[in-house]
Amino acid sequence: MVKMVGATPVYISLRSKPVDGRKWSSSDWTLDPKELASKFNSKTKAIILNTPHNPIGKVYTKEELQLIADLCIKYDTLCISDEVYEWLVYSGNKHLKIATFPGMWERTITIGSAGKTFSVTGWKLGWSIGPYHLIKHLQTVQQNSLYTCATPLQEALAQAFWTDMKRMDDPECYFNSLPKELEAKRDRMAHLLESVGLKPVVPDGGYFIIADVSLLDADLSDMKNSNEPYDYKFVKWMTKNKKLSAIPVSAFCNKETKLQFEKFVRFCFIKKDSTLDAAEEIIKAWSRQKS
Amino acid sequence: MVKMVGATPVYISLRSKPVDGRKWSSSDWTLDPKELASKFNSKTKAIILNTPHNPIGKVYTKEELQLIADLCIKYDTLCISDEVYEWLVYSGNKHLKIATFPGMWERTITIGSAGKTFSVTGWKLGWSIGPYHLIKHLQTVQQNSLYTCATPLQEALAQAFWTDMKRMDDPECYFNSLPKELEAKRDRMAHLLESVGLKPVVPDGGYFIIADVSLLDADLSDMKNSNEPYDYKFVKWMTKNKKLSAIPVSAFCNKETKLQFEKFVRFCFIKKDSTLDAAEEIIKAWSRQKS
Repeated sequence: MVKMVGATPVYISLRSKPVDGRKWSSSDWTLDPKELASKFNSKTKAIILNTPHNPIGKVYTKEELQLIADLCIKYDTLCISDEVYEWLVYSGNKHLKIATFPGMWERTITIGSAGKTFSVTGWKLGWSIGPYHLIKHLQTVQQNSLYTCATPLQEALAQAFWTDMKRMDDPECYFNSLPKELEAKRDRMAHLLESVGLKPVVPDGGYFIIADVSLLDADLSDMKNSNEPYDYKFVKWMTKNKKLSAIPVSAFCNKETKLQFEKFVRFCFIKKDSTLDAAEEIIKAWSRQKS
Repeated sequence: MVKMVGATPVYISLRSKPVDGRKWSSSDWTLDPKELASKFNSKTKAIILNTPHNPIGKVYTKEELQLIADLCIKYDTLCISDEVYEWLVYSGNKHLKIATFPGMWERTITIGSAGKTFSVTGWKLGWSIGPYHLIKHLQTVQQNSLYTCATPLQEALAQAFWTDMKRMDDPECYFNSLPKELEAKRDRMAHLLESVGLKPVVPDGGYFIIADVSLLDADLSDMKNSNEPYDYKFVKWMTKNKKLSAIPVSAFCNKETKLQFEKFVRFCFIKKDSTLDAAEEIIKAWSRQKS
């Protein structure tokens, strides 16, 4: 999309600190402040931020966001902030909106999602929040591309917000009950992946978990398309041989950063317990085979 | 879209016979059989048919469809049949599906629309009907472009069909009640347009009516963008000066056929009676001004 409008995309990777013996967490993945600053110049039109992050699950801290905000203000840069997992943050973390930082409201478009907020991804309904001078251009694009969102879905979304806004402190409120439910599934999934020799990065937000699969040393020699990145081959192999599916993380990367992530795959843990039970069976059998 | 896939679009226009004194009808607009045949050759991959036709409102007859079917079979050509107004046909007309003609099922994709069938155009929900060897490719496109249609809308559509299929002979059935309701609105609109000097083509189907505006001889000299087709200028002038809106028919045309239609504008008559009342007031005042 950036290229389609004639702009030049500039990439920066989250990088992980060494974690030694302790659990690997998405908070171990950070942007290098100097590297980040080096990507900005007078031609920088916009930065795309994603917190909570897909696929790593990182929830950006106040300090990290302040760094980005300072650069946006210094270089008069727009911030497109993808916060579709804003309600899905786990114990000890807090989602912050960069638009609320001083000097950021007038330069930020915050993107939200009904699909992610209320677990109705098939509805393809979302919203953008920002100042009029930015939103008016999005209205033009909306009018000429999407054109319209179905009224019954918009009404249902409004009712859902209305219901849950009135009970924000209630454990029954979906904004509280969903992350609580998912945190247990996250922990279960992390434990399962570890048990079979994968090295998960435990996410602070979102409903995906990535795992380093290199320790597994899977024999992919019978896989065709040997030019494909390792993770593409791995997920095909796992889907075919283990009947367990995941997404190759290098699919999220550009050419330069693909190498950094091609030993990672992304699992989704927003699943019925019965589906996780089935995954557990598969993984336990796999584990027995290995030992 | 035809050009995007690297194909060459070939156009053919419906042309009207002279009608002398009597009412102009969409059935006066026909394809010239020789001209149509001349457009086909061994490279012809597909024909796009639209019946009932937007914007003219023509409902193709059995003989006309047979002519198209014969050419499709002779040249082994696919037929993409846009039949989204299939239920909106008026007294004395019958919608026919070209896919039901001998030899056509295996080469036809018939397109339908929930929006047009049940007056929920904002839902952007529709369907394609065809043989598996064609539909399977549409599934691939759907998966990689639209991706999904919201479940509640699909369920509502299924329930609506279920309800009305069980009462096809009942006047309350939407397939019967809507065209009946619209036929009265069509006749009212035709009469109104005539009263102010526009020359409507009374449609046999659909909910649009086109009208030749050249007799009106509107003074458009104060309109900017004098390079625009006449109908573009006319609808802007009418919207601004008469507070009545329409669509320029040349917007539906390619470069070569624009000239044939630039004195036509398209009105929509699927409107509340109160909206048609307001249109009547405007048109009557306009008429008084002229006389």
